[in-house]
Amino acid sequence: MSQVETSVHGHVLDIHIRRPEKLNALSLEMYHDLCRALAELDDNPQLRAAVLHAEGKHFTAGIELDEWAPYFVSGEGFPLAEGGIDIFGLVGRRRRKPVVQAVQGYCFTWGVEMLLNMEIRVAAEDTQFAMLEVQRGIYPCGGATIRLPQQMGVANAHRYLLTGDRWSAEEAYRLGLVQELVAPGQQHAAAMNLAERIATAAPLAVEAVTKAVDFAHHNSESAAVEQIFADLVPIMQSEDAAEGIRSFIERRDAVFTGR
Amino acid sequence: MSQVETSVHGHVLDIHIRRPEKLNALSLEMYHDLCRALAELDDNPQLRAAVLHAEGKHFTAGIELDEWAPYFVSGEGFPLAEGGIDIFGLVGRRRRKPVVQAVQGYCFTWGVEMLLNMEIRVAAEDTQFAMLEVQRGIYPCGGATIRLPQQMGVANAHRYLLTGDRWSAEEAYRLGLVQELVAPGQQHAAAMNLAERIATAAPLAVEAVTKAVDFAHHNSESAAVEQIFADLVPIMQSEDAAEGIRSFIERRDAVFTGR
Amino acid sequence: MSQVETSVHGHVLDIHIRRPEKLNALSLEMYHDLCRALAELDDNPQLRAAVLHAEGKHFTAGIELDEWAPYFVSGEGFPLAEGGIDIFGLVGRRRRKPVVQAVQGYCFTWGVEMLLNMEIRVAAEDTQFAMLEVQRGIYPCGGATIRLPQQMGVANAHRYLLTGDRWSAEEAYRLGLVQELVAPGQQHAAAMNLAERIATAAPLAVEAVTKAVDFAHHNSESAAVEQIFADLVPIMQSEDAAEGIRSFIERRDAVFTGR
Repeated sequence: MSQVETSVHGHVLDIHIRRPEKLNALSLEMYHDLCRALAELDDNPQLRAAVLHAEGKHFTAGIELDEWAPYFVSGEGFPLAEGGIDIFGLVGRRRRKPVVQAVQGYCFTWGVEMLLNMEIRVAAEDTQFAMLEVQRGIYPCGGATIRLPQQMGVANAHRYLLTGDRWSAEEAYRLGLVQELVAPGQQHAAAMNLAERIATAAPLAVEAVTKAVDFAHHNSESAAVEQIFADLVPIMQSEDAAEGIRSFIERRDAVFTGR
Repeated sequence: MSQVETSVHGHVLDIHIRRPEKLNALSLEMYHDLCRALAELDDNPQLRAAVLHAEGKHFTAGIELDEWAPYFVSGEGFPLAEGGIDIFGLVGRRRRKPVVQAVQGYCFTWGVEMLLNMEIRVAAEDTQFAMLEVQRGIYPCGGATIRLPQQMGVANAHRYLLTGDRWSAEEAYRLGLVQELVAPGQQHAAAMNLAERIATAAPLAVEAVTKAVDFAHHNSESAAVEQIFADLVPIMQSEDAAEGIRSFIERRDAVFTGR
Repeated sequence: MSQVETSVHGHVLDIHIRRPEKLNALSLEMYHDLCRALAELDDNPQLRAAVLHAEGKHFTAGIELDEWAPYFVSGEGFPLAEGGIDIFGLVGRRRRKPVVQAVQGYCFTWGVEMLLNMEIRVAAEDTQFAMLEVQRGIYPCGGATIRLPQQMGVANAHRYLLTGDRWSAEEAYRLGLVQELVAPGQQHAAAMNLAERIATAAPLAVEAVTKAVDFAHHNSESAAVEQIFADLVPIMQSEDAAEGIRSFIERRDAVFTGR
């Protein structure tokens, strides 16, 4: 049985990690499956958003270090396969469609680092986050040293990165890492609600926003301003823009096609 | 009657949006009036800060899309007039004096984007913010894709930008977008208090801080450090610096002249 | 008697500011002593972290302006001595080991600016923070115009920088400036607990994380990603990495040596 199962619900791709007997430890196989699922999201024109979640009491307790050690010792980094999209967003092509990640129980190391790369996050109230690396003699290589300071504040990030201490779901919510806290077991449904809400919006606009936020993060403000207006033109000329305005005048919800 | 009315109170410029019968929808005329008011703030040496607020139950429900569409469809962007200062801070010269914005009721689309460009923000507890564009087939072009992630955290920004959902005044306060929550109707007075407090400070120092924060945001840290010390020299040699030290020794409030 | 006293507790350097009779005003002598203490932290291989705290009811009420004025008026900036490490992190070599700063009572101007440069912060509940400069005719030159916007949000930073108003310990915690609030008098013990926790982690990993966070802050994301994998190689090959894995398998705490 595959460690990652995908299914399509309307315009939403459900990406389900299923290795609870190993506390969803990240194997090489799971990494490749997840990268392939993200590529499916971007490449299938019917899909508008994805939900990423994991089976069992815990999202993940860590990685299969023996499988990964050769890549780390050599400094080679993540073995991204042809056509895949890196789950950490560190190498290869950029993703263009949004993912809502849902977590519960232990969400350690790579689980945090994947979360930092996903657009929206839902956490069960029992989630415990941790970047344990410094207490294991190694250090985080999935982007936490770059993104945790940006996303929870530099001093909060140091407080957890330098000690290896856990932080709670409530603390993650307080500091902006997660957007919604729910009772344990409700995290998948809550993430699905958000993804379906995104899927009712105009697909070209959703992609353009996702791209614009990513572009602005990696480029100067003046370049980002130019890009906004360049990308606005085709959207203003799209069928969905006309539908959006008609639906507003007619006081009804718009029905978008992505054209 | 003009859609924007300005008046001077001591060293504070009051900028008042008055188009409540249209829920303060942003017309081209209103845009030009607001840009002219910001230029007045910067260019009049008697002025030290401004308050920006709007008449009626709602700050704004949106824009006059038919007036704006030609600029968006062409990719031309904002039609900033000679001498004006762009209310979104995306094009033209940089503003040098601070603005306190007060909002209430609906504060949608361009209202949020102008807010993201103003120094300090006060919100009535009944304020509802939203970036509705993706639910209307278009996408935000007033800077929200650049600044909302910076100012409320990237995942919180995605949560609202990608769904078009509203967020509350309390959520805006929690996430750092607004600095003060007040009872509906008190937002103008609270903003005026902050602006008057700024107007008691040394004008050269206030301008230098406004400039330094903006400069540091757009340049490397090493450039920002050099700029701090270059700008410090004339301030240390100013009459107001001497007055500041005298007032400290004499245990009284300083009276600054901007020289 | 020296204004700054250092002592070693295990792998932790205790840096103690002792000038309570002057409300710990920053003299030139104190500046040089503190810069020397930070250099001792980085240069002594036995040391893994430091605690920085101050004697008395208040952390600091300000600076000895008459001693500092010549450096500010000339635009010369901080008179960092050979071998020292600038407490504001604005000039000279970068620090490689983490500092936990503990504050109480007044923590004004340079006290805030040093805090913004330290990795982790603990505040007594009675702490009052302020950047008073604009009310004294001058403006902040120790990095607050760069870092306060990054660390508490740009609008929150403007709200305090442009008015000179004080903010509370609770507000500092809410906005991410401090990580822990404790009863007055407990701030040193709480900071020491955090520093000792860091000192149990693998020293090479702690240094690499401190460096990686600083590097990512000052460089492009693509450069930061390359640097992560370059720095990971020697850590993966270290004795401490092997000890970390052994301790995990043997279900015990690791004992690290920094090799």
